Amino acid sequence: MSKVRKQTWRFDHPIYLAATGTAVGPLEAKGPLVESFDKKFEHLDCGEQTWSKAERALMRRSISACLAKAGKVEGDIDLFLAGDLMDQSVTSNFIARENRIPFLGMFGACSTSMETLATGAQLVDSGFADNVLCAVSSHNATAERQFRYPTEYGGPTKLTQTFTVTGAGATIVTREPGKVLVKEATIGRVIDWGIDDASNLGTAMAPAAADTIWTHFQDTGRKPEDYDLIVTGDLSSVGSPILDEILLEKGLDITNVHQDCGTMVYTSDQPVSAGGSGCACSAVVTYGYLYNRLSEGSLKRVLVVATGALLNSSTPKEKETIPCIAHAVLLESAKEVQP
Amino acid sequence: MSKVRKQTWRFDHPIYLAATGTAVGPLEAKGPLVESFDKKFEHLDCGEQTWSKAERALMRRSISACLAKAGKVEGDIDLFLAGDLMDQSVTSNFIARENRIPFLGMFGACSTSMETLATGAQLVDSGFADNVLCAVSSHNATAERQFRYPTEYGGPTKLTQTFTVTGAGATIVTREPGKVLVKEATIGRVIDWGIDDASNLGTAMAPAAADTIWTHFQDTGRKPEDYDLIVTGDLSSVGSPILDEILLEKGLDITNVHQDCGTMVYTSDQPVSAGGSGCACSAVVTYGYLYNRLSEGSLKRVLVVATGALLNSSTPKEKETIPCIAHAVLLESAKEVQP
Repeated sequence: MSKVRKQTWRFDHPIYLAATGTAVGPLEAKGPLVESFDKKFEHLDCGEQTWSKAERALMRRSISACLAKAGKVEGDIDLFLAGDLMDQSVTSNFIARENRIPFLGMFGACSTSMETLATGAQLVDSGFADNVLCAVSSHNATAERQFRYPTEYGGPTKLTQTFTVTGAGATIVTREPGKVLVKEATIGRVIDWGIDDASNLGTAMAPAAADTIWTHFQDTGRKPEDYDLIVTGDLSSVGSPILDEILLEKGLDITNVHQDCGTMVYTSDQPVSAGGSGCACSAVVTYGYLYNRLSEGSLKRVLVVATGALLNSSTPKEKETIPCIAHAVLLESAKEVQP
Repeated sequence: MSKVRKQTWRFDHPIYLAATGTAVGPLEAKGPLVESFDKKFEHLDCGEQTWSKAERALMRRSISACLAKAGKVEGDIDLFLAGDLMDQSVTSNFIARENRIPFLGMFGACSTSMETLATGAQLVDSGFADNVLCAVSSHNATAERQFRYPTEYGGPTKLTQTFTVTGAGATIVTREPGKVLVKEATIGRVIDWGIDDASNLGTAMAPAAADTIWTHFQDTGRKPEDYDLIVTGDLSSVGSPILDEILLEKGLDITNVHQDCGTMVYTSDQPVSAGGSGCACSAVVTYGYLYNRLSEGSLKRVLVVATGALLNSSTPKEKETIPCIAHAVLLESAKEVQP
C-alpha cells in the first residue's frame, strides 16, 4: 500500500469485488433499480415471524446470492466484516453465528457499508486475508421501532425525514481478477455541526460528507471531473444540496457528478419523504446498480461516500446534537476502454 | 505479515504499544490492581451530570493519559478504533467527535478491547497507519440500565451474574520501539451453545473462548506452557472453570496459566457476584496491570482472550440464545532476558 497523507488509503495490489449480492423489500422492488437486485421479498416480513428475523433474512439472502455468484462457499472466506443499525448490531452477530466465519463487527451507522468495504480491501491488500465477506443490512420496521416509533403506530413523518431502506448488500473482496476494482478508501472523521433534529439526518450528515470528499480530493489531487459519479449514501433530497453548497463555498463543484443513493433507490412518487436511508441504502445501490454499471464499463470511476449519523435513541433525549461520519471508497471498472 | 492458517495473524514487523492509559471508577479503585490505573474517579458519576457522560469521561481520561505517556498529541494519530456497550456505541462516537481523528467504530461487545487492538496492530504492520489509538469503555450504571434495570431500582442479582466494570482503557499501536510487543492475533468465530440466560454470560461465553484458544494453539503449534499467562476477558468465576473443562476434554490443559480479568480486577469480598465484566474489564487489566508486568519483564508472553456476548436487550425477550465471540492477542515483553 501507499499512504496519501493520513486519511486516504491507496491499494497497491489490484483488489477486486469477486461478486456482490443484494436483497430488498417490496417497496424497493417497486423502485427504479429493481432489475439490479438479486432477491426481492414480496412482503415486508420476508416470510419471518418477527421484524428482527426479517432483517436477518435480508442479510442471509444477500450473502447467499453473493457467494453463489462468486462461486465460493463459506469455507473459502477468511473474514466476515458486518454491521447494521440494530442495538449491538445483532443482525450481523446472528448471521455470523450461522456462517461461522471469523468475524469482526463494525459500526458506523449507515456508513458501515463503506467502512466494512474499506477495511476488507485493506486486509486483502496487506495479505492478512484472501477473501473477505462484507455485509450490511437495515429494515424499515426494525429501524423505525428502535429509533422512532413502531411503524404499526402510524405516526406522521416530517418532510425532512428519510425512510429506512429494507434491504441488505454483500460483497466479497479478493485479489482474484474480477470486473470491479477497489482502488482507494478515505476514512472519515466525526463531524457535528450542531443539528439536534433526529428527523433531519440529511442536514446533519452533509458536513461529514463534505469533509470526507474534500479530504479525498486534497489527498489524491484529482478533480470532480475525473469521476463519472460521486454518490453519497443517504443525504436525501434535503441533505444533498447542502453538501453541494458546502463544497461550492470551498471552491469544489461536484454538482455535475453528484447523486445520492437515497434519491436513486426510489421514484419521486414513492412515499418516502426526503428519500431512502439506512445501511442498506448505499449498499443495495452500490452492490446492485453501480456494480452492474462498473462491470459492463458504462461507468469507469465511482466514489461511494457512505454517510452515517452516530446517534442512538437516547442521545436526542439527553439534549445531544448528532455526530456524523462518512467513509469513501473509490471503485473502478476493470473493463478495458475500447479505443 | 504471514498468515498461519485462516484465523491467526502474525505480525512481521515489530509492532509495539507506545503507551497505555486507564481510568476506573471507585469500586475498581478499591480492587487489588489499583496501583496500575492512571485515573481513579472517586464517584461513580465521574463528576458528570449523567451516566452517559460519566462513561465518556472514563474514555476521555484513559486516552489523555495514554497520549501523555506516549508523548503524542491527537494530531500524531492516524486512526481511532473504538467501541463500547452502549446502543450504537455512542461513547466512542462522541469521543471521536472530540478528538477528530479518522475513526472506525467496532463492535464485539466485551471482546472489542482485543478486536480493536488486533485490527490496529494489523493496520500498523501493513503500513496503512503509523499510529493507531485503540480504546474501549464500560460503565456499570449505563450497562445495567440498558441491558437489565437501572441500578437505582436496587434489583437483586443472581450468583452467576457478573458486574460491569466502570472503566476505560486505551493504547497506541506503533512501529516505534516500546516496551511491549504485539506479536499475533487470533480472530474469533461466533459460537452459541444454546445458553439463553442473560444473567449467566460467563457460561455462554466459555465455549467461544475455548474455540479461539484451541484455534490459536492449532495455528501456532505452541503449548500452554509456552505462555506465562492466558487471561480471558470476563468469564468470571462461573465461566472460567467451564472453559478449562472444555479444553481439558479436548486434551489441552491451560489450568496452570489461565486467569480471568473478571476475577483479577476485584477482591473476592467485593460485591460483584461472579466477577467483573464489560469492555473495560479486559482493557483495564491488560492496559494497566499486564502492561506494567510485561514492561518490566516479569511477564514475558501473555495471551489476552477478550470474550463478548453478542446479545442486545431485546434478543432474550425474542427467545434467542446468546451468540458469543472471543478475540485473542499475543503480547510479549520487549525487555531482553538477563542471562
